[in-house]
Formats: sequence, C-alpha cells, structure tokens
Amino acid sequence: MRQPVDRTPVWMMRQAGRYLPEYRAVRSQAGDFMSLCKNTELACEVTLQPLERYEMDAAILFSDILTIPDAMGLGLYFETGEGPKFHKPVRTAADIENLQVINTAKDLPYVTDAVTMIRRELNGRVPLIGFSGSPWTLATYMIEGQSSRDFARAKTMLYTQPALMHQLLDKLALSVIDYLNAQIIAGAQVVQIFDTWGGALSHAAYQEFSLAYMQKIVAGLIRHHDGRDVPVILFTKGGGLWLEAMADTGCHCLGLDWTMDIARARERVGDKVALQGNMDPAVLRADPAVIEQQVAAILRGFGQGSGHIFNLGHGITPDIDPEHVKVFIDAVHKFSGK
Amino acid sequence: MRQPVDRTPVWMMRQAGRYLPEYRAVRSQAGDFMSLCKNTELACEVTLQPLERYEMDAAILFSDILTIPDAMGLGLYFETGEGPKFHKPVRTAADIENLQVINTAKDLPYVTDAVTMIRRELNGRVPLIGFSGSPWTLATYMIEGQSSRDFARAKTMLYTQPALMHQLLDKLALSVIDYLNAQIIAGAQVVQIFDTWGGALSHAAYQEFSLAYMQKIVAGLIRHHDGRDVPVILFTKGGGLWLEAMADTGCHCLGLDWTMDIARARERVGDKVALQGNMDPAVLRADPAVIEQQVAAILRGFGQGSGHIFNLGHGITPDIDPEHVKVFIDAVHKFSGK
Repeated sequence: MRQPVDRTPVWMMRQAGRYLPEYRAVRSQAGDFMSLCKNTELACEVTLQPLERYEMDAAILFSDILTIPDAMGLGLYFETGEGPKFHKPVRTAADIENLQVINTAKDLPYVTDAVTMIRRELNGRVPLIGFSGSPWTLATYMIEGQSSRDFARAKTMLYTQPALMHQLLDKLALSVIDYLNAQIIAGAQVVQIFDTWGGALSHAAYQEFSLAYMQKIVAGLIRHHDGRDVPVILFTKGGGLWLEAMADTGCHCLGLDWTMDIARARERVGDKVALQGNMDPAVLRADPAVIEQQVAAILRGFGQGSGHIFNLGHGITPDIDPEHVKVFIDAVHKFSGK
Repeated sequence: MRQPVDRTPVWMMRQAGRYLPEYRAVRSQAGDFMSLCKNTELACEVTLQPLERYEMDAAILFSDILTIPDAMGLGLYFETGEGPKFHKPVRTAADIENLQVINTAKDLPYVTDAVTMIRRELNGRVPLIGFSGSPWTLATYMIEGQSSRDFARAKTMLYTQPALMHQLLDKLALSVIDYLNAQIIAGAQVVQIFDTWGGALSHAAYQEFSLAYMQKIVAGLIRHHDGRDVPVILFTKGGGLWLEAMADTGCHCLGLDWTMDIARARERVGDKVALQGNMDPAVLRADPAVIEQQVAAILRGFGQGSGHIFNLGHGITPDIDPEHVKVFIDAVHKFSGK
C-alpha cells in the first residue's frame, strides 16, 4: 500500500483550528463550535483553510470526536474556556441499555455531507482524512460528562462493572464502524481513530477495553473503495508501550505521540505499518531555526525509505504563530526532498 | 543490596494524606498545607498515621515536592481546590541567575527536623523514605508558576533557551543533592526522586533535560550511611519507554506507573534494579474482590524472586475509602507470603 514518495508527506492534527485568524473569523460567524461542525459549507471552508496557507499533503475533515455521543442523545455542549460537556452523561445500566447504535445516514448526515462537499472542493488536490474517536475515549467523556484528570467514574465502571463497560464499548465500536464507513463512502480516502485517553489505562486494561474495540473497528471497515485501498491510522496518545499490539490490529499506520523515539518505534514495528508523527507541538512555539532542527532530527530518526507521514505528536494549540507552521511544513519538505 | 523477603513489602505514594480522617483532623488543626509541612511534630504525626492503621512496610516523610523552590524564595502557596502556585515564578535569565543553590541546614531545617523526629518515633519499626522532586519537575512549576497541562512556558524555554534551562536545572540538581543528603544524614534510609512530569517530554528532551540531572543526583548522593546502603528509587511518571536508560543511572530501584506491564518491565531491566509499583490508584475505588484480583495479577506478573516493592502507580487520591486501603495492603501480604 505504501508507495515511494519524493518527499515525506505532512499534515497536522487540528490543522483547521484556532491558531488561524481566518478560522476564528468563520467560527465567530457560525456561533458556537458545534454549529460550525454542523454547517456543511462552513465546515468545508475551515477544512480547506490550512491548505490555502501551507503545502499540506492532506486535508482532515473538520469535526469533533464527540459527534457520536451527541447523536446518541447525550447533548454535547461547550462552555467558554472549558472542554466539552454532556447534558446527560451515561452512569447506569439503564442509561447504557437505552443507547442506540448510531445510523450515520439518519443521525449524522451533516458529517457525511461535509465529507462529500470537501472531497468535491479538494478536486483531487490532496487526500481527505476522515476520523472518529475510539470507543474508550468516547466512553470516558460519556461517563464523566466532561474532560477528566483521572477518569474516576469511567475507571470505577471498568473495574467494578466490566460487563457493563463492555456493553457500552461494543455499542460505540459498532457506531464507529458505521460512522467511518459512511465517511469512506462519502469520500474520505484515509481514516484515523483517535484514542486520546487509551494511555490513561493500565497495560491489561488498555488491551481489553481500548485496543480490542479498535481492532474490531479495523476489522469492520471498508478496506477498498472506489478502486483504491483505504488506509487506517491508529493513534493512542501515550500508547508508546503498546506499538506492537497496535500494529497487530491490521491497521496500516500508527500515529505516534512525541514521547516516542521514532527510530526505536520503527525498529519495533518493522515494515508492518507506516508511522505518523511525531514532533512535540510545543516546538512550534520556538524560533524557526529550532523548529527546523527538530524536524530534521525526526526525519533522520525515521531514516531512509517510505512509510513516514510527518505530523505533530498531538494537536496544534491555539497560541501558535501561523508563520511558525509555515516553517514547520516547509522544513519537512525541504529536508526530506530528493 | 536486595535481600530475600518473606513477603513482598508494600507502601503507597501519598499514604499520609487526605483519604484518612485523622489526617484531615491534623491538617485543619495546622491551618494550611505548608504550615503542616513546617510543623515538625504534626508532620511527624501524619507520617506515622498510615502505619497505625495498616501493615505498611515503609514510612515516607510527609512533605511537599516544592519545598526547594519555596526555600529559593519563590513563595509557594496553595489555593483551595487548586494545585500549588508560586508568587514569584522564574521567567527570565536574571530570575535564574539570582537563584541560590539551597543549603538544607540553613534553608530547610524543618525537613531534616521532621526526618530526625520521625526516625526516632519509628524506632526501627519500618524504614523511613525521604524524597525530592526531580529538577525538571521542579522547574516546570517554577517557570509556569503553577500546575500546567502542556508546560507551554517551560518547554518554550527548553527549546528556545536551552542553556538557560540547563543553568536552572543544574542549580536544582545541586540543591536536590544537598537536600537528599541532608535527609539521609538526618535518618532517611531510602530516598525517592519524583519525576512527575518527565513523561511530558519528547524522548530526546527527557534524556537531556530530566534524566541527565537525575543521574547527576544519583552520582552525588551518599550511598552508604550509618553502616547500611542507602537505596535510591527513581520514579518518572509516564517513563515506561525509558526504563533501560533510567536503570543505567545507577539507581537501585525504578518506580513504575500503572501503564507498564510489570512482567515486561522486569524482562527489560533484568536484575539491574528492583521494581516498585504499580497498581492503578483507580482500582482502590473498586470492590474489595477486584482490588485483590488486581494485586494478585501484579504479583503474578512480577513473578518469583526478590526485587519487588509493591506500590500504587501514582499517589492515592483523597476520595478513597480507608477500608479499601486495608484490603490492598493485606492482599499484597496475603498473596505474596510464603
């Protein structure tokens, strides 16, 4: 599936985001964050914004990881300066019993509409990446009702009522399969699963409550569509200890956070999967010369051969100077070009 | 240094803490948190509290990791419901230039006084562990002025002014050496270095800005005192990727957080160091039967032979039922006893 490339491709997690003044302008026009996600034209517009400024090698659907629980009726909302919250968190067996596996065509048409429009607007310029949160990551927000530092409620359910947790995760995995397949049919050419909170789990709990469901998703995805393979990228933040197991899911590429030495990661997974990453997003606050040094070090670490997609190790933060992003993107191309 | 044991020894990070009603009573008597740390009698009393309730195999000095920056004049304070803060964070080259390496005898007598009194009160019952924050962990609080999610200021200094960061870390390492040696002379029989935020660094930055200074500390510590060896425990939260390098510092024991499979950790470091850990503190919220299962799984994971100190993978949280702690401690002894 990996093709030889002239230079290492690069994109950034959260590349359509608040660090861009043109994003902030559209965002204030849309009203709140979810209104922007649900407005097909505006979601398309902000998806394309970073491509206008930079030589990005991929677009990623502008959306939120919590669209699925929102569609399940939990009532997603955002308060200024805080993370996402749910009006109706999931706490009891009855709450979980009552959740319906989502039907994307019926429940989340705004997402596939955006994918279709973005794909049309891209017109073959670069590939479009679709995405979803992982079941465990979605479950943490659904149970806690908001972001959490130590996932007290979610872990209590995991340890005390594992069967109930599995029931929730299974409904979420089936929903994610439907959701990502709908994105693929609508035009997403690559999909990424964001397991933002898998790294908060113990070794054993990660395998059983996060990775097993991502494996189920990978097995359920459309792998060939419209005459092409559809690569799947698996990203567990803080998952550096588990790369071998992640590579065994059948995914095509592992997203690495910035704590992992990419040379060592490549030794560990060999040619089984491609690697995506992994500059610390904090480096983007440094001077251009430092950004270039750090990019060069990661390219050197990966070494020769194809199978590297350059990225940050996590999403870009709102305080970054857009000029520094240009330095970053250009450095990847400059230092990896033949 | 490791001796055969009849059963696996166990203690808990933050074992003298808010989950205990008797701690909360003394704390409200003392006033604020730092007043408790600075009151020799009361610090001694809360250090001993968990030993009255449970069959703990070690006591750990009751203190805070931020005593050193406080002694450097930064003005540590705590606001209710929030983490530690500093009145005078360190931001500029002049700020760092003006910092003095601490002299524990002069600047932090309340810590060594507490160690002396606790050791006397323990009267040989169990060993006393002294501790310090790691230079990088101290530096993050000193630069940010408080807890941080992404360490924006500290990482900007690290990447943009690495020489300045090294200057700060060097002063901190020299201070930690003096501080831990003073604790050892006062009676601490083991010392632990808490690198709470090393896991937020990239692979390369961890080696250069956190591990190198912990290595310097290990090299500068009194290794033999009062007729006995003084073991050093190194704990980097989120440091599972770097165990081999940590073991190479010359420390005696690695603290593991709960994300690491302890069987795999033992394979990786062999007999070079002992291992401490590593149950997810969240398990203490579960039913007693679950706590026992998780303890048994970790003991089984470590396997036969000495070199395991049981602990949590991070500090116990204030919401834990003290009865569950008894289940935990007793399970370690019950399942590891000969």
